[in-house]
Amino acid sequence: MDLLDVESVPDYVASLPDLASRVGTVSQVREVGDGNLNLVFIVEGSAGSLVLKQSLPYVRTDPSWPMTRERSSREAYVLASHQAIDPAHVPGLLFYDETRYVLAIEDLSDHRVWRTVLNERTEATDDDELAAAALGEYIANVGFGTSVFGVGSAAHKQAVARAINPELCEITEDLVLTEPFVDHDHNVVHPSNEADVAELAGDPDVKHAAGRAKFAFMTRAESLLHGDLHTGSVFVRFGDDPSVRAFDSEFGFYGPLGFDLGMLWANYVLAAARAVAQGQDSRARRLLGLGRVTWGSFERTYRDRWPSRQDPRVYGDAVLESLLTQVWTDAVTYAGAEVARRVIGFAKVADIETLPEDQRVQAARRALRASRVLITHTLHGRPDPDVLADLTSEPLGLSQGV
Amino acid sequence: MDLLDVESVPDYVASLPDLASRVGTVSQVREVGDGNLNLVFIVEGSAGSLVLKQSLPYVRTDPSWPMTRERSSREAYVLASHQAIDPAHVPGLLFYDETRYVLAIEDLSDHRVWRTVLNERTEATDDDELAAAALGEYIANVGFGTSVFGVGSAAHKQAVARAINPELCEITEDLVLTEPFVDHDHNVVHPSNEADVAELAGDPDVKHAAGRAKFAFMTRAESLLHGDLHTGSVFVRFGDDPSVRAFDSEFGFYGPLGFDLGMLWANYVLAAARAVAQGQDSRARRLLGLGRVTWGSFERTYRDRWPSRQDPRVYGDAVLESLLTQVWTDAVTYAGAEVARRVIGFAKVADIETLPEDQRVQAARRALRASRVLITHTLHGRPDPDVLADLTSEPLGLSQGV
Repeated sequence: MDLLDVESVPDYVASLPDLASRVGTVSQVREVGDGNLNLVFIVEGSAGSLVLKQSLPYVRTDPSWPMTRERSSREAYVLASHQAIDPAHVPGLLFYDETRYVLAIEDLSDHRVWRTVLNERTEATDDDELAAAALGEYIANVGFGTSVFGVGSAAHKQAVARAINPELCEITEDLVLTEPFVDHDHNVVHPSNEADVAELAGDPDVKHAAGRAKFAFMTRAESLLHGDLHTGSVFVRFGDDPSVRAFDSEFGFYGPLGFDLGMLWANYVLAAARAVAQGQDSRARRLLGLGRVTWGSFERTYRDRWPSRQDPRVYGDAVLESLLTQVWTDAVTYAGAEVARRVIGFAKVADIETLPEDQRVQAARRALRASRVLITHTLHGRPDPDVLADLTSEPLGLSQGV
Repeated sequence: MDLLDVESVPDYVASLPDLASRVGTVSQVREVGDGNLNLVFIVEGSAGSLVLKQSLPYVRTDPSWPMTRERSSREAYVLASHQAIDPAHVPGLLFYDETRYVLAIEDLSDHRVWRTVLNERTEATDDDELAAAALGEYIANVGFGTSVFGVGSAAHKQAVARAINPELCEITEDLVLTEPFVDHDHNVVHPSNEADVAELAGDPDVKHAAGRAKFAFMTRAESLLHGDLHTGSVFVRFGDDPSVRAFDSEFGFYGPLGFDLGMLWANYVLAAARAVAQGQDSRARRLLGLGRVTWGSFERTYRDRWPSRQDPRVYGDAVLESLLTQVWTDAVTYAGAEVARRVIGFAKVADIETLPEDQRVQAARRALRASRVLITHTLHGRPDPDVLADLTSEPLGLSQGV
């Protein structure tokens, strides 16, 4: 097996001149991977540092679940594509070793994972609005820049074919867009939440909306998505030199532009559900408001890029308005699915899981009600981006007003 | 150059044992290609006959316009895929020579091109309903059978990547979904129709609808389409042993399922425009009604196949209804675009072109009005499959009633 470990990493770095010159003499190697699919090493040396990420051929917590290592090549492709368009909002890709499935990535150890920061907070700060706005820019920049508008017809088709990601897309199709809405062994909830899950699954509109969203996910090759853009896939550095970077794009593929937005909104709702459970109503309201912040910055950035579209002959401004409406419609539906699966399914979130039992049950119940409102919202009506926070404040148990 | 000619075909057939045994001693070779992109030979012999179709590396009428020969490989792929699902409605693919870009295809010389038959008719017959229904079955069978419902997630993604068709899709994107709605050298109309074209192009909804339809065409990988399903791509044999086959699928790719339906509907409208111009109002009404026949047979066949879908967990019957609504919405929009480009653009149809001048101007005017109604129909309202003929009878100049 070609897997790296802390002993073999110095020789590996030394064997690659570009990396060796960047690191100098290796002084420390730490394995910091806490995900399920990869080894992650922080390598420090006399001249600098970097991160090595190597894919495992199986799921770490369940070695009997095999996992294609080709996902590393796809992550390298997505990262390189996004870096070329919006280098400020992704980690730098330094090198990709296609024989050993190793990515060398810029070391962002001076950043923290946004979810961790959010879960530690007890009071709202402007920092989260800054992060939410930066991610709206990122989604718009790469969403436009990898679309038919950004690259033209032939290049878009080649990129769609290049970026197919059957194994990891199937995980999303199953874990996010199917299992939370049906009986499945992956689904585990607190006994006190079983009625809440039954209420969600018992609404035929929920399964209908999930089915439509899954079909869109499987067929609409609009933009090269990050594919897993929750608050745990975002590094933040606040303060004088703020920086917001989306990492772990191995789920990336060509899909509906609204998907990444929806994932993010859902994770704001989950953070808000935690804040409500902790009695921080006003902070919860600001967390819900982050959805509007991300949308606003997404919309402004996308509109700014629109005049640069290739071949505008029949792509007039009316098409832009249709497109934005569609993106919002998709996003709110995906947000509902993501909230549900983060409470019910295989990969739950710390936001709720780390709460004391009473609060956890309460937060899960409210989140599931918010999920239902979100996922079914656009099934029968017309979407309105301004109602984002309103939609979820009532099911989360927030009283009206600021 | 490796191009075949009537002299070299017998040796070519003799060099391939499977084909040689099918044909026996070659007695006659005729070059019958009347399209722009290929050589087509009918080869007859002592044991049987077959057709050889070889792609040219350029457009026949304009050798300065180069054309990738990879399209032959894509046509072979589409034909083989469709044959595996619905052999009754495509010609049999006997062999594909990937080095010389030659397809060997079942000889359907006892069939005629449906457009030719339609244009010769002076009275309606049930034969056309038979053909329209057969094509609805074909579209549903291959549309379902190549979709995520038919093949599942991973196989669908591989097939989408395998079937990308940049060069020929770009022709459709330009000739069908762009040029008819903007100023372009390809657009030529009779001076008496210039005001009609201006009326169409002057409606902002037309360009908006064209833009949305083009974006869907470029991004929605739903089913492996024929891609160019007009009445000139259909062989028919009526009588005791009826047979209806869609041929020339080199424009095939993964696109919106409604596209093939829309192409076909548009060509019914064009046939009806001819009939109206010839004073055959009741035949025109039946031609318009073929849209409903194709839709009805498409819908029945698709619904019949639906219970066999893979992974029905969130794909319940409500999703089927949503899907059918979407297919109809797309189809009517594509129909509008196809009618317009067949009157205005680069590849006009015999239905209208072969009419005497007065009738031609009249038919073009009416067809353009029908195009406008079709392409904008679903922009602001809810679609209704039953209004298909109603939508176009008034702009074509048909009085109400049967």
